[in-house]
Amino acid sequence: MSSWLDAIKWGADGLVPVIAQEVDGRVVMFAFMSRESLALTAEKGEAVYFSRSRNRLWHKGEESGHVQRVKAIRTDCDKDVVLLTIEQVGGIACHTGRHSCFYNELNGDEWQAVEPVLKDPKAIYPKATN
Amino acid sequence: MSSWLDAIKWGADGLVPVIAQEVDGRVVMFAFMSRESLALTAEKGEAVYFSRSRNRLWHKGEESGHVQRVKAIRTDCDKDVVLLTIEQVGGIACHTGRHSCFYNELNGDEWQAVEPVLKDPKAIYPKATN
Repeated sequence: MSSWLDAIKWGADGLVPVIAQEVDGRVVMFAFMSRESLALTAEKGEAVYFSRSRNRLWHKGEESGHVQRVKAIRTDCDKDVVLLTIEQVGGIACHTGRHSCFYNELNGDEWQAVEPVLKDPKAIYPKATN
Repeated sequence: MSSWLDAIKWGADGLVPVIAQEVDGRVVMFAFMSRESLALTAEKGEAVYFSRSRNRLWHKGEESGHVQRVKAIRTDCDKDVVLLTIEQVGGIACHTGRHSCFYNELNGDEWQAVEPVLKDPKAIYPKATN
């Protein structure tokens, strides 16, 4: 396997945290990658995360079509975090149908949703049962 | 304590991952906060992290003077990640003397440092012993 993958300091669970940022600077998502998913991400040029809840590889957009085209892969000074520069196909990264997952902003002592729902999640995930 | 802190899904270690992004969009740092440090961050308007290696509150810039003025605090759909919008005083977030911690970019199968060192770390941390 490539040495650039060895340079990453994988967590005890074999994962590394990943920040996905659009080319225009907007941070849209935070998730995790395994060694295999990071290798696939670099190979395909599309973000492949590791879903901790489903305990499997998660090719972002596999169901919704909202794939993330990877333009650059960076890591930090400690090499224990990855920052992806991406183009978010469909303009929706969040499962709630919003552009970004980071739509709750602290206003005084309350979290307020400051981004609109662009598409009904039921229309994004027609096969979902919940 | 305020309910907005209760809304955060704290990890088993009592911490939440935090992304620090400059007002212009550049992601400069990734670290963790405890409940106390997030409360202090909101109160002071300056980023106060929780250092896992030193096991204590870490007021960013306490030694270097490179504090982070907090302009907005966001959380994601799952409320288990925090995104800070900040102004990085001194223009240096990284302990290596670079603007951002995310200075290693994947080029082929090699990580390349693509951001310059703006200031010698020895000049930033004159009291450091290593």
